[in-house]
Amino acid sequence: MTDLQSALDLLGRGADEIIKREELEARLKSGRALRIKAGFDPTAPDLHLGHTVLLNKMRQFQDLGHQVIFLIGDFTGMIGDPTGKNITRKPLTREDVQANAQTYAEQVFKVLDKERTEVRFNSEWFAQMTAADMVKLAAQHTVARMLERDDFAKRYAAQQPIAIHEFLYPLVQGYDSVALRCDVELGGTDQKFNLLMGRALQEHAGQAPQIVLTMPLLEGLDGVNKMSKSLGNYIGIDEPALDIVNKTMKIGDDLMWRWYELLSLDHSLADIERMRREVAGGQRHPRDAKIALAFELAARFHGKAAAEEAITQWNAVVREQRIDVDLPLLDIPVPESGLRIAPLFVAAKLAASNSEVSRKMAERALRVDGTVVEDREKTLHAGGEHLLQIGKRAFARVRLVAA
Amino acid sequence: MTDLQSALDLLGRGADEIIKREELEARLKSGRALRIKAGFDPTAPDLHLGHTVLLNKMRQFQDLGHQVIFLIGDFTGMIGDPTGKNITRKPLTREDVQANAQTYAEQVFKVLDKERTEVRFNSEWFAQMTAADMVKLAAQHTVARMLERDDFAKRYAAQQPIAIHEFLYPLVQGYDSVALRCDVELGGTDQKFNLLMGRALQEHAGQAPQIVLTMPLLEGLDGVNKMSKSLGNYIGIDEPALDIVNKTMKIGDDLMWRWYELLSLDHSLADIERMRREVAGGQRHPRDAKIALAFELAARFHGKAAAEEAITQWNAVVREQRIDVDLPLLDIPVPESGLRIAPLFVAAKLAASNSEVSRKMAERALRVDGTVVEDREKTLHAGGEHLLQIGKRAFARVRLVAA
Repeated sequence: MTDLQSALDLLGRGADEIIKREELEARLKSGRALRIKAGFDPTAPDLHLGHTVLLNKMRQFQDLGHQVIFLIGDFTGMIGDPTGKNITRKPLTREDVQANAQTYAEQVFKVLDKERTEVRFNSEWFAQMTAADMVKLAAQHTVARMLERDDFAKRYAAQQPIAIHEFLYPLVQGYDSVALRCDVELGGTDQKFNLLMGRALQEHAGQAPQIVLTMPLLEGLDGVNKMSKSLGNYIGIDEPALDIVNKTMKIGDDLMWRWYELLSLDHSLADIERMRREVAGGQRHPRDAKIALAFELAARFHGKAAAEEAITQWNAVVREQRIDVDLPLLDIPVPESGLRIAPLFVAAKLAASNSEVSRKMAERALRVDGTVVEDREKTLHAGGEHLLQIGKRAFARVRLVAA
Repeated sequence: MTDLQSALDLLGRGADEIIKREELEARLKSGRALRIKAGFDPTAPDLHLGHTVLLNKMRQFQDLGHQVIFLIGDFTGMIGDPTGKNITRKPLTREDVQANAQTYAEQVFKVLDKERTEVRFNSEWFAQMTAADMVKLAAQHTVARMLERDDFAKRYAAQQPIAIHEFLYPLVQGYDSVALRCDVELGGTDQKFNLLMGRALQEHAGQAPQIVLTMPLLEGLDGVNKMSKSLGNYIGIDEPALDIVNKTMKIGDDLMWRWYELLSLDHSLADIERMRREVAGGQRHPRDAKIALAFELAARFHGKAAAEEAITQWNAVVREQRIDVDLPLLDIPVPESGLRIAPLFVAAKLAASNSEVSRKMAERALRVDGTVVEDREKTLHAGGEHLLQIGKRAFARVRLVAA
């Protein structure tokens, strides 16, 4: 296998589409460091594993020696919602943008190589552009082709309003590739239309059109829907190591292999294939494969030591006690204002009184979902399931229901 | 009849639509000088009577004490054709715009009152606007409503491309009304959509929406098609007085009354109605009504003396000689380079030799289409019909055909 072939294999790993693969091959052959762009929303970032699919792909390009551009689309963010209909979407100030960029940096450099990352803002070039420049940009595309974009087509057919400036935003995104002279743009499959816009505008500007590489949207914990905050089926990259482990250990086996492909940087496709065969052949317990994945993910965002500790905790609390299997689930009624730790443990019959709970808390002997609780004001609300622990051996599984 | 009612009658004369009439009435009642806008193309102007329908309406507002804004839409003109497809539509320079404005001024102040006219350029405000401002402007309208505009709807249905910037131009025009705080905008019926855009954007900007007053498109000499350069059925306002008279005298009677309504400033609707009754009742020859119209039009663009002379000439040459009725039409072959006066008169058998023509020319005894010709280099080309005259009584009607 040639170097070029292995590079192509790595970059193609998990990709939904590469337009065009032969162009990517030709540019890789050139030997120069390519310019790889991915665009990010300028609003407050709070990344989950779904976002890291793209970050991983960026990292793979970096590991092959290419330059990554982390582009923050602040030009449109600073306009806000110009229709004035969405009052919650206030225009961002320059300070907001800088603060959000800082938060991004703290998160994304857990995956990306800082040395090979350029953080850019598209206001750099759009703030200089005049109304006339925008008219000229708008002239480079037709209404009919814009209405071919999936979401526009659906909204137009359903007679839902599309404001005209929404037609300008894909052009803005496309023009960013011209301004940055990108070789490759990465994005989710839902971004394909906008990424192709970059190709068109670059050609119009006399540049070689960028290669478009789309990544699938990661399925969330449920294994069905795409991972998202609003569906609650996510793992945030700032979550504690134990939560990352706990949640990862609960996913189904099929989803595990999918996550391996899209989320693992440590395991090659060949590795993953071998593990898969071993699991299928009974030489390896699927739980062990899952532990290896959970470890990698926890280690990426919290370091190896924290990941090891989380795996140990998980083994102690969940696995060795077989909590999920053996304990009955108690329904605990909870008033609308929630329930504090002390009455919760009393209701779960793990303690005789609030004062006993307080004593145990002071000894750091109280855990909720495997995590030590020291805050007596901590309040839980109806709607969740929790594992309560007091001391080494006393557990209860509770479901909090509205009183 | 109150003053207000007579003002409304005058302003409504010939109008296709007033949106909304009660708003116009309310603003006229306020007693203040209203701001009346009409937009004009920044490309080289060469006005014909069709354009004066709008100028007349502007003049009527001025005569009632209102302020007229002659708006030159140079912002888009200076962009040219941003698709780059129409290479003949080059961007105008600031010098071009100034030169064209000068030409406009020479023409339009034959109708408008200079004292009550503000000549403005929309580059004044659009040159200051940023790309972000244009995005915000674009947000104020939806794709669906834009596609309701007649020509867009037709092109979209016929799958003819509409570039996205074409959606921005009506917004630009509408925004001009915001920048100028217009009370009324005038335009042809074909401009209705764009004029209504001004209403919408003004409301959005917290201004009282302008009244929209549309004027019909003037029928040309043929009485059927709208007057236009490309159809050749026009009278240019820079044409010689005799041509204005000649052409006007040839229009049909129905068209004459239509022209009276839309083109006459001297004759009130009551006047016109009386003339019409007199013609219908046989008390007045329709030709006399037509002469009065021809006189008014010639006088507007060339002064009363020139108009009187033109009418006299028309009487002498065309009417008294009954040229149109009695003379046969001779076909004269003309080479591609054209035919000079001397060989033309020889070919028409009005003279025996070129030198005889030269002698008569020196005596100012040669006329073409009623106008004395003194330039022996003057050359006529294939494609027209002309009335040639030598001395007092010798005429020929010729049709110049390609040799």
